[in-house]
Amino acid sequence: MNNIFKALSDKTRREILNLLKRNDMTAGEIAEHFNISKPSISHHLNVLKHANLVLDERRGQNIYYSLNTTVFQELLQWVIEFHSGKEDTKNEGQ
Amino acid sequence: MNNIFKALSDKTRREILNLLKRNDMTAGEIAEHFNISKPSISHHLNVLKHANLVLDERRGQNIYYSLNTTVFQELLQWVIEFHSGKEDTKNEGQ
Repeated sequence: MNNIFKALSDKTRREILNLLKRNDMTAGEIAEHFNISKPSISHHLNVLKHANLVLDERRGQNIYYSLNTTVFQELLQWVIEFHSGKEDTKNEGQ
Repeated sequence: MNNIFKALSDKTRREILNLLKRNDMTAGEIAEHFNISKPSISHHLNVLKHANLVLDERRGQNIYYSLNTTVFQELLQWVIEFHSGKEDTKNEGQ
């Protein structure tokens, strides 16, 4: 959970996730949407990968990045617990 | 959003939020649940307050901390957008 929230605490990374909602994309395609260097985009993609928020897959010459919806499902359940006031702490801190 | 996610990226702070789901509590009551110093608990409470995840209210001699459910509602909406794959980026990065 720490890595997930750390990864989400950066606006550029949240914007990358927003882009990936629509389409799987290569690092180059993602970089076209930002005014920041390609190495910087690569760094952000590595943080997102490390947090399991995005997956990467080789297709021919290219590596495509996609949202890992499983982790968003976990995050959703975590937030819903607070919203509903459910008194279940046993899964805290995973 | 950055502050919210940064605040959530720490296990102790997530555990404090879990405690506050059940009851509003003073800093002293919260500290009883942890093996860490009171100044350290105060620091974590300040980070949570700064992110608007908790509210504080004076009642007589004591200051009580409570969950700010409004912010959890915003967070829920943000996560639901990803889970549902909704293509709405206009509120990103608030």
